Amino acid sequence: MASYTEPMLRDNALKGKTIIITGGGTGLGKSMGLYFLALGANLVITSRKMDVLEQSAREMAEKTGGHVLPVACDVRKPLEVEAMLKATLDKFGAVHALLNNAAGNFISPTERLSPKAFDVIVDIVLKGSYNCTLTLGKHWIANEQPGTILNIVTTYAWTGSGYVVPSATAKAGVLAMTRSLAAEWAKYGIRSNAIAPGPFPTEGAWSRLFPEALAKKLDPLNRIPVKRYGEHQELANLAAYLISDYSAYINGEVVTIDGGEWLYGGGEFNYLDQVPQDMWDTIEQMVRGKKEKE
Amino acid sequence: MASYTEPMLRDNALKGKTIIITGGGTGLGKSMGLYFLALGANLVITSRKMDVLEQSAREMAEKTGGHVLPVACDVRKPLEVEAMLKATLDKFGAVHALLNNAAGNFISPTERLSPKAFDVIVDIVLKGSYNCTLTLGKHWIANEQPGTILNIVTTYAWTGSGYVVPSATAKAGVLAMTRSLAAEWAKYGIRSNAIAPGPFPTEGAWSRLFPEALAKKLDPLNRIPVKRYGEHQELANLAAYLISDYSAYINGEVVTIDGGEWLYGGGEFNYLDQVPQDMWDTIEQMVRGKKEKE
Amino acid sequence: MASYTEPMLRDNALKGKTIIITGGGTGLGKSMGLYFLALGANLVITSRKMDVLEQSAREMAEKTGGHVLPVACDVRKPLEVEAMLKATLDKFGAVHALLNNAAGNFISPTERLSPKAFDVIVDIVLKGSYNCTLTLGKHWIANEQPGTILNIVTTYAWTGSGYVVPSATAKAGVLAMTRSLAAEWAKYGIRSNAIAPGPFPTEGAWSRLFPEALAKKLDPLNRIPVKRYGEHQELANLAAYLISDYSAYINGEVVTIDGGEWLYGGGEFNYLDQVPQDMWDTIEQMVRGKKEKE
Amino acid sequence: MASYTEPMLRDNALKGKTIIITGGGTGLGKSMGLYFLALGANLVITSRKMDVLEQSAREMAEKTGGHVLPVACDVRKPLEVEAMLKATLDKFGAVHALLNNAAGNFISPTERLSPKAFDVIVDIVLKGSYNCTLTLGKHWIANEQPGTILNIVTTYAWTGSGYVVPSATAKAGVLAMTRSLAAEWAKYGIRSNAIAPGPFPTEGAWSRLFPEALAKKLDPLNRIPVKRYGEHQELANLAAYLISDYSAYINGEVVTIDGGEWLYGGGEFNYLDQVPQDMWDTIEQMVRGKKEKE
Repeated sequence: MASYTEPMLRDNALKGKTIIITGGGTGLGKSMGLYFLALGANLVITSRKMDVLEQSAREMAEKTGGHVLPVACDVRKPLEVEAMLKATLDKFGAVHALLNNAAGNFISPTERLSPKAFDVIVDIVLKGSYNCTLTLGKHWIANEQPGTILNIVTTYAWTGSGYVVPSATAKAGVLAMTRSLAAEWAKYGIRSNAIAPGPFPTEGAWSRLFPEALAKKLDPLNRIPVKRYGEHQELANLAAYLISDYSAYINGEVVTIDGGEWLYGGGEFNYLDQVPQDMWDTIEQMVRGKKEKE
Repeated sequence: MASYTEPMLRDNALKGKTIIITGGGTGLGKSMGLYFLALGANLVITSRKMDVLEQSAREMAEKTGGHVLPVACDVRKPLEVEAMLKATLDKFGAVHALLNNAAGNFISPTERLSPKAFDVIVDIVLKGSYNCTLTLGKHWIANEQPGTILNIVTTYAWTGSGYVVPSATAKAGVLAMTRSLAAEWAKYGIRSNAIAPGPFPTEGAWSRLFPEALAKKLDPLNRIPVKRYGEHQELANLAAYLISDYSAYINGEVVTIDGGEWLYGGGEFNYLDQVPQDMWDTIEQMVRGKKEKE
Repeated sequence: MASYTEPMLRDNALKGKTIIITGGGTGLGKSMGLYFLALGANLVITSRKMDVLEQSAREMAEKTGGHVLPVACDVRKPLEVEAMLKATLDKFGAVHALLNNAAGNFISPTERLSPKAFDVIVDIVLKGSYNCTLTLGKHWIANEQPGTILNIVTTYAWTGSGYVVPSATAKAGVLAMTRSLAAEWAKYGIRSNAIAPGPFPTEGAWSRLFPEALAKKLDPLNRIPVKRYGEHQELANLAAYLISDYSAYINGEVVTIDGGEWLYGGGEFNYLDQVPQDMWDTIEQMVRGKKEKE
Repeated sequence: MASYTEPMLRDNALKGKTIIITGGGTGLGKSMGLYFLALGANLVITSRKMDVLEQSAREMAEKTGGHVLPVACDVRKPLEVEAMLKATLDKFGAVHALLNNAAGNFISPTERLSPKAFDVIVDIVLKGSYNCTLTLGKHWIANEQPGTILNIVTTYAWTGSGYVVPSATAKAGVLAMTRSLAAEWAKYGIRSNAIAPGPFPTEGAWSRLFPEALAKKLDPLNRIPVKRYGEHQELANLAAYLISDYSAYINGEVVTIDGGEWLYGGGEFNYLDQVPQDMWDTIEQMVRGKKEKE
């Protein structure tokens, strides 16, 4: 029987596909990349830190026997993105999918942010995503090749959220781009989708969002109906599905994988989970009594 | 300067309009009705309890000098709805707007509900709303008259919510009907909109949703960014606007008036409001430190 | 490499699971059931027509070597639903998942509908779904077993749609129930999700929604960015994923699989697809000219 | 009786409020400003073109007898925004509301856009909005004054749309900021809301979105259920309401005023409006016949 800690797709599901993952050298990007490799894909991983990338690439290739090209690339700079595409084509001959995963985020009251601090996040997340998307899209359209775009967003791309407003703003932009191009570029055989992950612990980003001192005080698990964080493999399973041709009829969609977190917070009476079971008997009688009197 | 406890529309904004309010004899329905009367409308109020209706009608007419027709009507029964329309036409000659406001709701763990208990809420809220809507819509279309429909829903019509699942289910249906008919019946001059109110205290329904013993334990105000409940006049202002011709280009819309409640719960990091201001200095330094090391 | 006409999950992904599919004897319900069987599940299929069910059950068992129990059951009747659960337990000892798939729908201007015609659809779709959900949920909670609920809805569950208003109303209710119980019942190990399929041709329902004479006149394919209808296997792949434990962290989610249809219609400027490529040069110059003059 | 071409709020509804409107010298910004003045507000209008601003300010003051301060300000530049705030305080002593209305947009296939063309729109719309919002928010918080933010977005902020992707991206960001700060800054007495207008003709922006040659070929009115464009006064009415204290309990909301356009496109079967009334008889019989045979 299936388990969410195990890979789910049939062997070779991504065989012959070359996939670019921005921010692919660490964290969730790396976990998704490892699974793509295991499914037969070639991989290009990018970030600004070539040493980290090279070590990750070696490690990922060893683990899976797949091909991984590390390319230093600041996604905020269109020329570097173009060079990254060229390096990809030089190495693999073609490219089939783009996973916009590079991000930056940290928690702060918004009134403590300078416009510049806001810009930094928006430039990496939003401009970085559209720079890569424009470059890949133009390439696919010019070459009459199909392609697949997958964007990592967040649930607060649509609810908004205090304390991460630059990220909320940028991710909402990425989600709108996803839906826009799903409509506009489908005629060229290009699909666009997104994933909105809830809390998946990683070594880097996680500690900037859930500093340890804070996590002790305000346990984020309380906000998640299924009472656990996500496992990297379950995000990898979903990402591989949305990159693969198995999901060919899914287009313009954002799939949320958060254990029910955002709905749990949003639904007006879910906080009644705090009512102990035996108190419900009392409430039931109070309510019935009032109904009868009315 | 304006205050939210005061009426907002220009005099006679609803002059000459006859408006049916289901569940109009008590609570928020009555408050909206009072304001419609003050703006020059004729009113029909319905519920199953003729004695309550008659007393309310007298009181409302006295307060405003307007015309109020009380009609006993179980909205679950199409024949009674038709009779109610006939009584309206007999009295006022025409009808211009329908406010689907009648509702039923109470809190309960879903597994404690019988199918029948579920049916009761769905029948009043969903069937009641479409019975009235079908009857009025057919009347307007047959007579080539324009009309306006306004439906009272909830924010959990789209987020869902535990502990009020029959209501969530029914109100979601009403919202979908609102949007469907906004598209389909606009060609007949019929507009459809909805309001999703957050917590507005009333004498009846409120105590079934926020029993006193519970409110002490779990203060619902904590969930509302603006830290107060709504005032009846502010709901009445919004409803009068959406019924009036001032909102003629708003169609298929649901306007939320909840102080920000649902978004506050839904946004992933809004719970950081609990972090005291001085702790943010510490967090800032931790985050910066980690960023530099990476 | 993967193809969307092929099964995607690893062998035995549903091994040992018993799954109830309402409306499982024909159309998309049957296609999903066939794939669940191929993945190792036991199946219970229900509808009101025992002869159809029995023939389907035989056929499905033969094709896959799996176990299929046909049970006549009118989902509108709680007692029949309870009897269906009992038959399931008698046969398979336990049940692990419920797929609320039974539906009714047809196209009609809303003003041509009687309240009774409206009721028929709402009773099958909405009441049928909550009858089954309440019965299964209570069973799982009482027996301290986990469970999975998957509901088939539509994209007009949130956009609404003219000409299918009873279905829109009912499906919206089912979606709200999905999200409500995802929040409330997660503590019992019960997950709830939904799928919103776009147009997937079937023998029965399809012809009531897209009568041939109409399809000639108003080609629905024009509304779908990927320019094809869905294949049953791609819906089956998605459904099997959402039923399986691979999706254990997806909860309260509705996954749309419609080729981008609803967004394509909803996005304000997507109709510019009708502008021929060479006309864009002209427009570009007009726009630039105006910008310079301003 | 009310008419949507007439002002709706009671006299002096904005008396004593000073309101900044970015892009307030022309088009819809000017129309909203004129109504704010008529309701007793002081106005600051900004754009990059001082000559246009000065002429508009004179004209607006003459028409209404109100006070209008024109300030040249490129909202992309934080220092200019700070100077604009200072000029506002020097003139009026305090500021109570910010209307982020400045925008840029034009239609183009996305693959024809350079990253730089994309940046131009994102910088004006998104960065401009958060520059102004940060500056005003910090000012209000530091001075312990309440404030109101109103942002003009679009319906494709959530649906996305081809052919206006930079605008979709940027407006989605502004909407997420609206919702984020509604949650985070409510504790300081700052409310945030948005309006999503459908097509409201103006002299400037309109011609870049609906070039005349195109409008002849593809009539945008076909996409709007109420079969007309919006009138400036009805947008002004809604904006004045959301700026005024009458809407004090509306927070984090986006109100759509588009005649039902986006829902009409999004709802799967709304295209059946094209079926002539008499063809429905035929369809009804076909459908019934099929149902009986099943």
